[in-house]
Amino acid sequence: MKKLINNVDDVVRDELEGIQLAHPHDVKVSLDPYYIYRADAPVQGKVAIVSGGGSGHEPMHGGFVGMGMLDAACPGEVFTSPTPDQMLEATKAVSSGAGVLHIVKNYTGDVLNFEMAADMARDEGIEVESVVIDDDVAVQDSLYTAGRRGVGATVLAEKICGAAAEEGRPLSEVADLCRKVNDNARSMGMALTSCTVPAAGKPTFELGEDEMEIGIGIHGEPGRERMKVKSAAEVVEILAGAILDDGVIGSGDNVLAFVNSMGGTPLIELYIVYRDLHRFLEGRGVTITRNLIGPYITSLEMQGVSITLLKLDDELTRLWDAPVKTPGMRWGA
Amino acid sequence: MKKLINNVDDVVRDELEGIQLAHPHDVKVSLDPYYIYRADAPVQGKVAIVSGGGSGHEPMHGGFVGMGMLDAACPGEVFTSPTPDQMLEATKAVSSGAGVLHIVKNYTGDVLNFEMAADMARDEGIEVESVVIDDDVAVQDSLYTAGRRGVGATVLAEKICGAAAEEGRPLSEVADLCRKVNDNARSMGMALTSCTVPAAGKPTFELGEDEMEIGIGIHGEPGRERMKVKSAAEVVEILAGAILDDGVIGSGDNVLAFVNSMGGTPLIELYIVYRDLHRFLEGRGVTITRNLIGPYITSLEMQGVSITLLKLDDELTRLWDAPVKTPGMRWGA
Repeated sequence: MKKLINNVDDVVRDELEGIQLAHPHDVKVSLDPYYIYRADAPVQGKVAIVSGGGSGHEPMHGGFVGMGMLDAACPGEVFTSPTPDQMLEATKAVSSGAGVLHIVKNYTGDVLNFEMAADMARDEGIEVESVVIDDDVAVQDSLYTAGRRGVGATVLAEKICGAAAEEGRPLSEVADLCRKVNDNARSMGMALTSCTVPAAGKPTFELGEDEMEIGIGIHGEPGRERMKVKSAAEVVEILAGAILDDGVIGSGDNVLAFVNSMGGTPLIELYIVYRDLHRFLEGRGVTITRNLIGPYITSLEMQGVSITLLKLDDELTRLWDAPVKTPGMRWGA
Repeated sequence: MKKLINNVDDVVRDELEGIQLAHPHDVKVSLDPYYIYRADAPVQGKVAIVSGGGSGHEPMHGGFVGMGMLDAACPGEVFTSPTPDQMLEATKAVSSGAGVLHIVKNYTGDVLNFEMAADMARDEGIEVESVVIDDDVAVQDSLYTAGRRGVGATVLAEKICGAAAEEGRPLSEVADLCRKVNDNARSMGMALTSCTVPAAGKPTFELGEDEMEIGIGIHGEPGRERMKVKSAAEVVEILAGAILDDGVIGSGDNVLAFVNSMGGTPLIELYIVYRDLHRFLEGRGVTITRNLIGPYITSLEMQGVSITLLKLDDELTRLWDAPVKTPGMRWGA
């Protein structure tokens, strides 16, 4: 295993210390338990948004803490759910009395722990709503998931709900918006290489020199199929084809197209994938009106790409365009 | 070779088409010859800034075209210098009559071709100044370079000079500022893995399972030394130690610390490196007052990191903080 780390057991702590040192004006870091929160939290009168999950998917979620996006994020160990205690403390730290939305990716550990944390927070008088994201069309049920996995739509939901919360909208509306994003977004990913969890010290799975895996999960969970490596255009057809086949997005729709690196795929390849995605969607009558291209929800150093499409209307477009100022996503501020 | 591409010969063209489709309001792309330029070019009364170099280092340089940074960028084939013709056409496309600054990384092909392009532009009545960036302390002379290689300082020079040009400062001042950045910036990088140039189809170099290369160039040029993989803190001590040993930056200085991914290293490792860099510099009396962390000058999918330190004064800090709106770097706009 070759990684730029110190002790295997200190990876998350060292990273959190780095985030704190790098962005002292924007975020604060709690090291006991681990969570990252807005430096100006709690923001009076604003619904607070909390997310979290295993580490190894950076910049998600800690990099999305800041104005216009998350109020707090709870990182677990690499590919391991954070604990209810982390989620409770983060919720309390950012709650201003206007309610807290938990955005939860659909992995069994995350869902259970966020449920416990929400119950505990309610016991302390904090109003909490939870929305589970499950946008991955690759497989029904997976290694760590009942139902569909939650992937790229999480990034989009955090941005859009963050903008709505900044506008002062009430908890029920921000939660409804989160469900709307989840209902209108679909994703699928693929891998050219595996990744290595530091504590494991060896690749999560093995792929042949000429193989790729279609429908991979962000922890290396098995996908739909292994096959010989194909061209970018063919990969796009498989991923985006599966998304459109799911039936939510089709001809006549405007979409946000999110082309995401799994961590180790460079930007030059992402733009080629974007080019091919644009062509493919044009041929199917789908118009890209917004896009996001880069590493936003990653799987350590895995090489590969995921595509997320979100059907847009005027409301979602306006909230997407609203200013955001976080270490991992920033515009208009 | 596993890459998300179509034909090996079409990598750069496909990428440029992707950039054009993704950012139609911000940049325009010429496909004959290849260059990327601001959609609003030429900007009347403003010094224009043109850079370029081989592809494979994205987002540099094409991702830095836009308000507050470059007016145009010329991409060559992967790890291959662009031609004088590209540079001339880009220069003409963005020249408003206020003069053009060429920012050139110190690689023999880039330097020669930019010199020819500058001469041809002058023949057409365009005032051109050129500044060569050579900030890499790793080696004196290299595979493609006489003298020191130009690396991370290029990103910082493009941002800072771009801000000065937006302020309406004259060509001589913008060029002086570029020399000032180069004089006050030093870099060194390392690799955990090689990269594969698409046209070559095999790794540029071989590294053992437990080896790293210190002082690597951004095209995989040999560095100072191969050694067993060390911890992040030890790697930082080697890289930042070499930078400080060069004598330009030392105790009492304020610096911008730029921790750059070579392409395949994920953000979680960059923040660990940043943590260790902050500690190392603190111990040496150097204060980080600004930072940049992410993949900005890459070597395809190479895993590794480079560190660039730029000694800051009030002027450089103010220009660094100025708004920028490009596909690859954006804040305040």
